[in-house]
Order: sequence, then C-alpha cells, then structure tokens
Amino acid sequence: MNPLARIEAAVEAAIGSVERPGCPPGLSAAMRYAVIPGGARIRPKLCLAVAGACAADDPILVDAAATSIELLHCASLVHDDLPCFDNADTRRGRPSVHRAFGQPLAVLTGDALIVLAFELLARAGRVAPARLADLTLIVARSVGGPTGIVAGQAWECEQALDLSQYHREKTGSLFVAATMAGAAAAGYAADGWRALGDYIGEAFQVADDIKDVLAKDGDIGKPAGRDAALGRPNVVNSFGVAAAVERLEDLLAKAQESIPDCPGREALGKLVRAEASSFVPKKLLRVAA
Amino acid sequence: MNPLARIEAAVEAAIGSVERPGCPPGLSAAMRYAVIPGGARIRPKLCLAVAGACAADDPILVDAAATSIELLHCASLVHDDLPCFDNADTRRGRPSVHRAFGQPLAVLTGDALIVLAFELLARAGRVAPARLADLTLIVARSVGGPTGIVAGQAWECEQALDLSQYHREKTGSLFVAATMAGAAAAGYAADGWRALGDYIGEAFQVADDIKDVLAKDGDIGKPAGRDAALGRPNVVNSFGVAAAVERLEDLLAKAQESIPDCPGREALGKLVRAEASSFVPKKLLRVAA
Repeated sequence: MNPLARIEAAVEAAIGSVERPGCPPGLSAAMRYAVIPGGARIRPKLCLAVAGACAADDPILVDAAATSIELLHCASLVHDDLPCFDNADTRRGRPSVHRAFGQPLAVLTGDALIVLAFELLARAGRVAPARLADLTLIVARSVGGPTGIVAGQAWECEQALDLSQYHREKTGSLFVAATMAGAAAAGYAADGWRALGDYIGEAFQVADDIKDVLAKDGDIGKPAGRDAALGRPNVVNSFGVAAAVERLEDLLAKAQESIPDCPGREALGKLVRAEASSFVPKKLLRVAA
Repeated sequence: MNPLARIEAAVEAAIGSVERPGCPPGLSAAMRYAVIPGGARIRPKLCLAVAGACAADDPILVDAAATSIELLHCASLVHDDLPCFDNADTRRGRPSVHRAFGQPLAVLTGDALIVLAFELLARAGRVAPARLADLTLIVARSVGGPTGIVAGQAWECEQALDLSQYHREKTGSLFVAATMAGAAAAGYAADGWRALGDYIGEAFQVADDIKDVLAKDGDIGKPAGRDAALGRPNVVNSFGVAAAVERLEDLLAKAQESIPDCPGREALGKLVRAEASSFVPKKLLRVAA
C-alpha cells in the first residue's frame, strides 16, 4: 500500500472507531468532517517515511503515531478557525467546522480529536508497551504547554511575541513530532531526529511565506497577500523572492544532512527533497523567475 | 500525607511543569487559575482510595492517574463555561476562566489541560510501562467519543437525548475512570471496578438534584432552583425529597456492595459512605426533614 493510502485507511479506521451506536450523531459527523477528506497529510507521511527509514518492525504502532499526529493537526485547525481566533469561514474549500456544525460542536470536535489521538497511541501501545511512554511524551509535548502548538497559539494573546519561537511552536512542533515519533515507533532514540523536523518545519513556513506573496486568491486554498495586508513579517516581503527561495533550498539541504544514521538514510533524504518540492507549486516559482 | 494534601501536591507539580521559561505567561496563568484552588477533588480522592484498597505499589502511577482525572474534570468545566455552552460568568465563586482571561485562552487552557493529563500518565508510565496502555485507555474513553464527557456534552446539541445516558456520560464517566484507573494503577483488572464508579456517579447526580431543590442561592456555590426554572428533570421535583434521599441511600448501599474483592474492601466501603455523606450538606437535609 502506498503511504497516502495507508494513512487514509488508518485515519478512516480511527474515525470509524468513534462512529458507534451511542455516539451523538452530530459529534461523530463533525469529527469525520474535520478529518476526511484531509489536506496533503504531510505530517503523517513524514512520520511513516522516518519509520520506514528506521526499518520499523511494528506497523500498528507506526500507523498510530502517524494518525495521532494528523488528528492533532486537524484538531488545531478546528479550534484555530473558531470566531475567537481566526474566525475563518472556510477551510480546504468548504465551510469550516463551526460554520457547518456550530461553535459548540466545533469546540467538542477539537477536544474529542485530541483525546482520540492519545487513545490511538494507547491502543497500539498494548502490543508494544515499552515504546508507548516515549511516543506519548513526544506527541504530547508537541501539542501542549509550555512549547507545543497550544503554546504557539497562545502567544497570539500576548502583547509581544518572538516570531521565530511562535512559528517553531505553532508550525514546526508537529513536524518535529512526526520525525521523532517515526523514529521512536521504530525503537530508535528520538532526540537525534529533532533537527530534521525542525528544518522541514521551517522550510514549510518559508514556503508558506512565498505562496502568500506569489499566489493569487484561489491558487492556494486560502486568501493570498494576507501577510502584507495584516503587517505580518514575511521573508519574501523583507528580502525578496530570490532570497526566500535560497533560504528554502538551504533549509532542505540542512534537513537532508541532519538525518541520523539509519538503514534508509539516503532514500529518506531524497524523499524529503521530493516531498518538499511540492511545498510551493512550481508554476508560482516559474512566474516569479 | 493525607489524600487531599497528596492530591494538591500532585496537581501543583503538574501545573508547575508547564510554568517554565518559554511558556506564554497568559496560558500558564490561566491553566493554574482553572485548577488551583480546586473544588472538593472528589474524583482524584476516589481514585486514590481505590488504589489504596488494592494495595497499589506504585505511588507515582497512582498520583498520575488521580491527577490526570482531575485535570480533565477542570478542562471540561473551562470549556462548559464558554459562552457557546453554559455562558457561565462564575465558577467556584470567582470569574470563570473566559471571563478572567478571555475566550481564546479559555479554549487553549482546556486543550492544554487535556494534553497535560495524558502527558502525566506517560511520564509516570516510564516507570511502569506494562500498565500505561490500559490506564490511558480507561482515562481516554471516559473523556472522548463515543461515550465519554465530550459525548455527554455533545448530546446538548441534539434534538433529543436520553437523560440517563447524558448524565452517565457527562457526570458518571469520570467517576468510572476514577475507580477503574485506581484499580488499574495497582495492577488489578479494571472492569470489575466499573460498577462502583457508576453507582457513585449516579449518587452524585441525585445529590445534585437534591441540592438544586433544597438549597438557596449562595448555599452551594451556584444558583439554586435551576432545574425547575429550566424545565429540566429532577428526581426531587418528580418524586419528592424523601424518595430522592431513599434513592441516594440505595445507590450508596449498592456502591458499597459492588466493591470487588481486594485487601482494603471493608475500609473502602466505609470511606465511600463517609465521603458520599458530604454530597448533600447535612443542614439542607435537616431543613427538609
């Protein structure tokens, strides 16, 4: 099974485990809506790729790690879209969860997806108890306080924020979780895999800046030019397209170099480059060149 | 250390683990505010009592189980109080979290407390990996979909609800988690401990009905007479005080009988009765007699 099909099957099974008699129909429908169909599934694909490079011997644990990270990503989108944060009416080209199901179910959907992420890990951990604690800690720390996604989002409520810390927590932390959890699920020491997640997360952020400037509305599934409109820092607006593309290249080269020794090191490096090339649609770069 | 002091120390340590340099100050302050000072800590006390009756040999795991349940209880209160649900201005005699810190931090505080609950279990599970998966599953199922607290709350968004299922999920599920997790942390089979949690949860709900009818505003930390005002079913309004008190007694007797065989069975039964006697303030029952 190719990685994307494998992820879709695991996500489907996770949501299916909630859709049982006795579950409030609105809650299960909103949870499905929040997660399926998904986006590019970049984070779980990265997790699977790292686990594969480490020759992981326990596919159930790897699937659970990848899926838990995707569910947490979706949960953060549902809560970020709420009126008290981004007040986003649309997501992935259709109404956001609170627009489709109302605010109460949107809050509960995010909550239930967070819980389900940890439940998935525990279910899989029954077969590999020795790795469960580390895996759960990696995932929990990437999401909660003091420095996970929730902390990143909470910086928006402060008077002053350190922009690179903000991006690292809000965007980078789940990429770090993906690489570290992929390695941990395979029984590897996870710490050495942090840098790979960090570099990819930062590259993803630079790509986002490039898209924000070069795209037109409709090109990228969300409004373009928002950074300039809102006065937000953007590497393209500050240093130009060429510098941004160079920065992106540099980060991806560093990402590739950072990969720890493992059976599939070389193939993983190529995969990371190939996947990252889709961070910015090629036609945007051709237009800019 | 007495159980309450032990719980307060564990809760303090959990919140302290978030209050580190790098954490957005608003987030850590709101998390502390949501959890300390707490209420009666009934659920974690029950968890500790069951673990004690089972002669638990791993206090770190027991503390983590009890604390995770308390954090999840507090998280549910923070989200329930939000304007899109109960729109409660006060909680435990002071402004609710969203009134004190704003809605964005209230949403994030609930999220971060849920994540912290599972992180605590994983930290403790490093020393007892064999019990971690079951413990995490017990806790996760009591909170998430399809039949945990979140599901109970989601029934409020449906046209029709089964009231006893609603109460069992919204109120009972964390009592069940408390008894089952206490037993699981001690290495006992948890399933046999479900009935005890169920009976105590139902008794707690009947006590709540009694307080709602007999108390005056200010007596019980929240407005009285709400069930009649809102047309909600209440066992006292339906069958009278005497029948409600009899039902409460019956449930507590069944709770006591249901306790599985364990070294501290008799003492636990007495403790459950003693603790439950505080569910309804004695002066209310004297007034009604």
